[in-house]
Amino acid sequence: MKIVLASASPRRRELLTTLGLDYTVLVSGVEEQVTETEPAKVVEQLSEQKAGDVLQRLLRAAEQEDLLWDGEEDLLVIGADTIVAVDGQILGKPTSSKHAAEMLGWLSGRRHQVYTGVTLYHHSRGKTCRHTFHECTQVWFYPMTEEEIGWYIGTGEPMDKAGAYGIQGLGSRFVKAIEGEYSNVVGLPVARLYQELRAMEVM
Amino acid sequence: MKIVLASASPRRRELLTTLGLDYTVLVSGVEEQVTETEPAKVVEQLSEQKAGDVLQRLLRAAEQEDLLWDGEEDLLVIGADTIVAVDGQILGKPTSSKHAAEMLGWLSGRRHQVYTGVTLYHHSRGKTCRHTFHECTQVWFYPMTEEEIGWYIGTGEPMDKAGAYGIQGLGSRFVKAIEGEYSNVVGLPVARLYQELRAMEVM
Repeated sequence: MKIVLASASPRRRELLTTLGLDYTVLVSGVEEQVTETEPAKVVEQLSEQKAGDVLQRLLRAAEQEDLLWDGEEDLLVIGADTIVAVDGQILGKPTSSKHAAEMLGWLSGRRHQVYTGVTLYHHSRGKTCRHTFHECTQVWFYPMTEEEIGWYIGTGEPMDKAGAYGIQGLGSRFVKAIEGEYSNVVGLPVARLYQELRAMEVM
Repeated sequence: MKIVLASASPRRRELLTTLGLDYTVLVSGVEEQVTETEPAKVVEQLSEQKAGDVLQRLLRAAEQEDLLWDGEEDLLVIGADTIVAVDGQILGKPTSSKHAAEMLGWLSGRRHQVYTGVTLYHHSRGKTCRHTFHECTQVWFYPMTEEEIGWYIGTGEPMDKAGAYGIQGLGSRFVKAIEGEYSNVVGLPVARLYQELRAMEVM
């Protein structure tokens, strides 16, 4: 089976690798269009758009006898999207250092939620099935001083991450506890994904 | 300040590195003597024995003008011990494949606890202070089939780990959720340690 991860995130690649799957990365160029407002629905919608866009590209490639995919082999496309929500407000990636400082100020000393939505497109014998789900993990931060926020932004780690922190990196020192799946906070709920792939008899 | 980690675990080294500390590893050769029975007390006691043994070695080294430590510089020794407890029974590292299979069978589809005890010896201007604490994290496993247990043991990952699994490796696929600090399950609660070191004005 050809497995395609529709994400450029090195963290998602690493997580998918722990499942021992051989996969290719094909990044979606889709313009994200959010019509949902609930965090869980937003990440599901975005994961669907990313995976759907890559699926369409692969189907076109097969028609045009492009080398991306032959159209015969079974195909699995995995799309994922992660956001942080605090008090019902959705935080994406920070747009500036000031924005990152603002976000970290909101998270400091409190609980927030991390949502990752995952869409699986499974194409087998001319038929495509879609399966979408999400996981939510609660995250508690220790209080952060202004000095700590400044230091953390100075490391550069917050800038490409939803909610302006990375739980697996230098940001780990601020995370008092989580409730839920850990890898979901990193960007891909591997245990849930593994269970879903087993249920689909893909693993 | 000279910082010494009294542990051979590569996972603890990696976690300590995320705190950005410069440290040396010196492994305790102490014969572990457990008189406690409660998991939290057991890990505290063992972390204290490991850190205490390394501290004694360093103090002797300073007396003998050994190069390990000059006796003048401030010194911080960090000892840690991790165990898994399920239904009040303590699981250490498995002694055989059969033992590992037994442990994983116990954990399958249920909740267990991971305890890490940490002892910090801070030696400054001829005075030594000891600070010991522990963190407990709840861990939920998805049900595992016999085939999955066999496969996992075949990977070799369970053999050197308390409870016969590694949450950061191939074992991650079986962990449905946790409640508490993640790195505590890996072997060293870095966020808690960071907070304690800040309170001690070491960081």
